[in-house]
Amino acid sequence: MHSAVDVIRAKRDGGQLSDAQIDWVVDAFTRGEVADEQMAALAMAIVWRGMTRHETARWTRAMIDSGQRLDFSGLGRPTVDKHSTGGVGDKITLPLSPLVAACGAAVPQLSGRGLGHTGGTLDKLEAIPGWQADLPVARMRELLADPKIGAVVCAAGADLAPADKRLYALRDVTGTVESIPLIASSIMSKKIAEGTGALVLDVKVGRGAFLKELAQARELATAMVELGTDAGVRTVALLTAMDTPLGHTAGNALEVCESLDVLAGGGPADVVDLTLALAREMLAQAGIDDIDPADALADGRAMDQWRAMVRAQGGDPDAPLPQARHTETLRAPVGGTLTRLDALDVGLAAWRLGAGRARQSDPVQAGAGIEMHAKPGDSISAGQPLLTLHTDTPDAFAPALELLADAFTIADADPEHLPLILDRITA
Amino acid sequence: MHSAVDVIRAKRDGGQLSDAQIDWVVDAFTRGEVADEQMAALAMAIVWRGMTRHETARWTRAMIDSGQRLDFSGLGRPTVDKHSTGGVGDKITLPLSPLVAACGAAVPQLSGRGLGHTGGTLDKLEAIPGWQADLPVARMRELLADPKIGAVVCAAGADLAPADKRLYALRDVTGTVESIPLIASSIMSKKIAEGTGALVLDVKVGRGAFLKELAQARELATAMVELGTDAGVRTVALLTAMDTPLGHTAGNALEVCESLDVLAGGGPADVVDLTLALAREMLAQAGIDDIDPADALADGRAMDQWRAMVRAQGGDPDAPLPQARHTETLRAPVGGTLTRLDALDVGLAAWRLGAGRARQSDPVQAGAGIEMHAKPGDSISAGQPLLTLHTDTPDAFAPALELLADAFTIADADPEHLPLILDRITA
Repeated sequence: MHSAVDVIRAKRDGGQLSDAQIDWVVDAFTRGEVADEQMAALAMAIVWRGMTRHETARWTRAMIDSGQRLDFSGLGRPTVDKHSTGGVGDKITLPLSPLVAACGAAVPQLSGRGLGHTGGTLDKLEAIPGWQADLPVARMRELLADPKIGAVVCAAGADLAPADKRLYALRDVTGTVESIPLIASSIMSKKIAEGTGALVLDVKVGRGAFLKELAQARELATAMVELGTDAGVRTVALLTAMDTPLGHTAGNALEVCESLDVLAGGGPADVVDLTLALAREMLAQAGIDDIDPADALADGRAMDQWRAMVRAQGGDPDAPLPQARHTETLRAPVGGTLTRLDALDVGLAAWRLGAGRARQSDPVQAGAGIEMHAKPGDSISAGQPLLTLHTDTPDAFAPALELLADAFTIADADPEHLPLILDRITA
Repeated sequence: MHSAVDVIRAKRDGGQLSDAQIDWVVDAFTRGEVADEQMAALAMAIVWRGMTRHETARWTRAMIDSGQRLDFSGLGRPTVDKHSTGGVGDKITLPLSPLVAACGAAVPQLSGRGLGHTGGTLDKLEAIPGWQADLPVARMRELLADPKIGAVVCAAGADLAPADKRLYALRDVTGTVESIPLIASSIMSKKIAEGTGALVLDVKVGRGAFLKELAQARELATAMVELGTDAGVRTVALLTAMDTPLGHTAGNALEVCESLDVLAGGGPADVVDLTLALAREMLAQAGIDDIDPADALADGRAMDQWRAMVRAQGGDPDAPLPQARHTETLRAPVGGTLTRLDALDVGLAAWRLGAGRARQSDPVQAGAGIEMHAKPGDSISAGQPLLTLHTDTPDAFAPALELLADAFTIADADPEHLPLILDRITA
């Protein structure tokens, strides 16, 4: 006979929760027997005292067991997925999924919508006319089994780790988000439940990321790699820089457009580099070592796969993408070298322009966002266009421009080029 | 514009809450705008990070301001109250209130019912036929103003620190009871709101008390003395031992009976000693220094005052007290010196016999409890009655006797006599 107060006190006093306590408290919370106020107190005690590797693994398993665990074995090809902790301009899933599928792996991705200053993959894909995020599991399996498609990105159903959904909503309003074991178990419960055989994590670090410090990012990455490994999912993590936005766009349709450039063999260097680095990690985890993804980008195979994948989910790859009704251009006030373009400020401004949402139920504008005409390291002359702002709601220009006023630095000095990939964490 | 998450995060990260944050969060919680799960997370953050003296004082004031603060100034005599943190056999309020009133102070006491192994003062007084705990404030004032009565013990109304009532119920189910600032502010918000001009605290320490260690008790006493002083209530605390029950009885009518012995000039030495020590502290706080309370006990003035006080609240001081329908005697298995009689075990056994309640809504048995025929330090012979158990529900004898089996030690050695009063804490 368990009691919520006993479990809370055990963690509050710095003890280790037993497997039985974890199984019970997660299940009883999902059923409503453990009240929200009790789980909130326990979550704060976990923020305080932490959890061991064993406790975190058991907690993750209990959240997975609160719902359905998908199984995509027997497709005849390995499954592998990528998860990013979220960054500004992070459209990598769009070129990456068809690229990896073109190289012979199946990519089953259950994804979310954006909240706050980083965009969501589903919001980006929904900018494509006709594209649908909701698929039954049987249809997912059909698409994954088809070598011409092989990748699906869709919304997670209500039965995928429902304990995590409830707990995440509770943590959001109780100041208990910031806990490495709780963050790691939240992400990994969904990724393990989605049924992928291998996983590559892109853990963002810097001004525009959830984690600002390399040490925290390394700690989170290590916890997630351990959780995946302990659950039988081959897992590796890259720590990547998020001080400046990825690529030249932040916003839904703008990022789809940029992804098409990458799939056509062009696109910004940072987006191409990160896409290829993650593709190589995914293919290695999937045991595919005889194909260079750079070739599949260059020769159009990835683009073909993209078009099939978009069509399979109801989208029209040839339809024009939505465009915002209003634009405004911010010009460089002086000439020199752009030494800083702040990811957080750009993300907040894009959000303010309508690309993101403040509440889970808000709509987003498909065309809203920011184009960046220069990236840190580029030389610019006074008066040259620096940023173009896109929105359907021109009232948003003034507050967005205010956010962007201090978002950049133009100087005489050579910029300090920071590497994009900061570390690699394996089991 | 305050947000609950900002307040929770500030405390979680070890910061000090501002006056405005404390005022807002306590008020918004009382109004239901801050949800239970948010206050539970904040309470756990306070268990973790603590509160400064200033924060605790402001928190206490906010809880007082959530309801009505009574005012008993203008009675023509000083007001002074006593509060005990709760012990087994602690009937001190019963002889003490009329004794102090007989010496010229007014004693306005808002009290509670017992929960768990320590009894409640209202439960004890309710064993007196006809006695009523509920009084309107105007009637309280009349009784306090009457020098022949001068003391009231009654139930706290719903408007006395309602924030504390809500918060205490929440802490009870979320493992957040054990925090010195939260305990101190809970007790002191009620005592300050009840309108007493001075206060003497009896902080119990030992096996039968809430606090087992002297250092914790000293910390709590210091916090409460500071809170009272900061709120303009002259406050002093005694730390007193609660390793063995006070007096020879634990149970409602049994304790009233023992209190009558004390008021008649007899009674157990420990009860008399503590009653006089607390009376001297109360009279000193009230500025009355020309009366020795020992005289008022010896010459029957305290007993007269008791009879008037009981009658004023509807009780019949001459009616026979309720007796339990069944008794069972536990005899000393060997002869020697009783070196230990455990307060917690006796309290739990009395509770099991029906003297206490498990839930706030349960009834109590007026006659149930335990008589102790010997106290630590007494010589006893084999076969001599050691404890008499009283109950209306004889099924309770077996579990109560099981609790009492290891409750005492009889040895050859002289007992170690511990002092009753361990320390005195002043501002």
